[in-house]
Amino acid sequence: MRIDVLTIFPKMLESPFSESLIARAIKNKIIELNIIDIRSFSKDRHKKVDDNPFGGGAGMVLKLEPIVSALKSIGVRKKNKFYKNSYKKPLVIYMSPQGKTLNASIIKNLSKFNHLAIVCGHYEGIDERIMNFIDTEISIGDYVLTGGEIPAMVLIDSVARMIPGVVKERESIINDSFYNGLLDYPHYTRPAVLGKLKTPAVLLSGDHKKIEKWRKQQSFIRTRKRRPDLIKKYNLEIKELTK
Amino acid sequence: MRIDVLTIFPKMLESPFSESLIARAIKNKIIELNIIDIRSFSKDRHKKVDDNPFGGGAGMVLKLEPIVSALKSIGVRKKNKFYKNSYKKPLVIYMSPQGKTLNASIIKNLSKFNHLAIVCGHYEGIDERIMNFIDTEISIGDYVLTGGEIPAMVLIDSVARMIPGVVKERESIINDSFYNGLLDYPHYTRPAVLGKLKTPAVLLSGDHKKIEKWRKQQSFIRTRKRRPDLIKKYNLEIKELTK
Repeated sequence: MRIDVLTIFPKMLESPFSESLIARAIKNKIIELNIIDIRSFSKDRHKKVDDNPFGGGAGMVLKLEPIVSALKSIGVRKKNKFYKNSYKKPLVIYMSPQGKTLNASIIKNLSKFNHLAIVCGHYEGIDERIMNFIDTEISIGDYVLTGGEIPAMVLIDSVARMIPGVVKERESIINDSFYNGLLDYPHYTRPAVLGKLKTPAVLLSGDHKKIEKWRKQQSFIRTRKRRPDLIKKYNLEIKELTK
Repeated sequence: MRIDVLTIFPKMLESPFSESLIARAIKNKIIELNIIDIRSFSKDRHKKVDDNPFGGGAGMVLKLEPIVSALKSIGVRKKNKFYKNSYKKPLVIYMSPQGKTLNASIIKNLSKFNHLAIVCGHYEGIDERIMNFIDTEISIGDYVLTGGEIPAMVLIDSVARMIPGVVKERESIINDSFYNGLLDYPHYTRPAVLGKLKTPAVLLSGDHKKIEKWRKQQSFIRTRKRRPDLIKKYNLEIKELTK
């Protein structure tokens, strides 16, 4: 998968994918990550990329032209009835608190694309007319950050780990929180006892049937206690999970 | 505010706060950001920090001891009835999909602390017994990432911008999405016309009362269309917002 990130702060994205799983996926060419500096597309002699909002008010707004030029450089055209969903262009995503809230199902869908372009806003956001070039607007949650760069990292990391070959053991993903609508069960590792802190006996029993049942129950009990909304949302059968 | 981040991948956090608002807040000593390498607290001769899960299954689990040692180095002790909420220790946060979902109200509360310590998990997570040292478990949304480092960035960025002096214009924060329970209104900046793309006439009218009304309406229309759940959640008065 190719992922282009358009930002006015390209340095922010330098280190987060220099270590761990995603770094390996980039090295192994499963993922190609391109950071595109919006500022380099500014025709202004001071390389200005923001301006005051029309109508007044606090903060700065990212100008349309440099971002549109940057998008055109990677094959994106203004949406219209002929061009929409052309297979040659990347899926263009705008990270913004106004977008659809990211979840496991959006992540699964995005992981099937060959090419994503992620546009990061900053300050008060981007001139609204950018929406003529955006396929989907995604929010990582109900809160505001200083810019779209960290949300872009969230999206890249979550989508990348769904691509076959990125996470070695497929089982890890299937047991993830949210993958099947429930929170993950608790994990324990050596030492079995540390001071007063003990590992639940069942995990040391070697009885794999019992362990599997305990984990399912823990997963369910945890979800019911902490996130009853998930239980309702996914319409889970209590019987099936506690039997 | 002092923020300590405990991670096995300290390099990941190097660049995201090297630019923009948070970089300036660090430079101006409004925020002190310390990245603590958990691995340096491992007593294992190979500096091992993870191990296989008790009970079997895929993936690795972060070991308890190096993290506990790292926490102790910044004054954290095991929770007990005497020690709980001692004002001298940092508030210890564990980033995990099993936690409370981050929102504007949690962010406002966290911004009042003098010292936060953020523990990042990785792989399948941390040995569950770590919970004896954690004050609060926070999730950034209903999805899974490869580790807690990017969620820690989300938390740092969102909390930091609420600290007075970090965002210059207070008005920017008050108009944020979610701050008052609604999504932000659209922004426009120069040029007023770009090809076929125009700025709404009202914003160019100079009539500040009309502009304010238009913005409120846009904010409301947008929220109703995209996030009707927010309208319900915050119990907003339709009348008040459309009058």
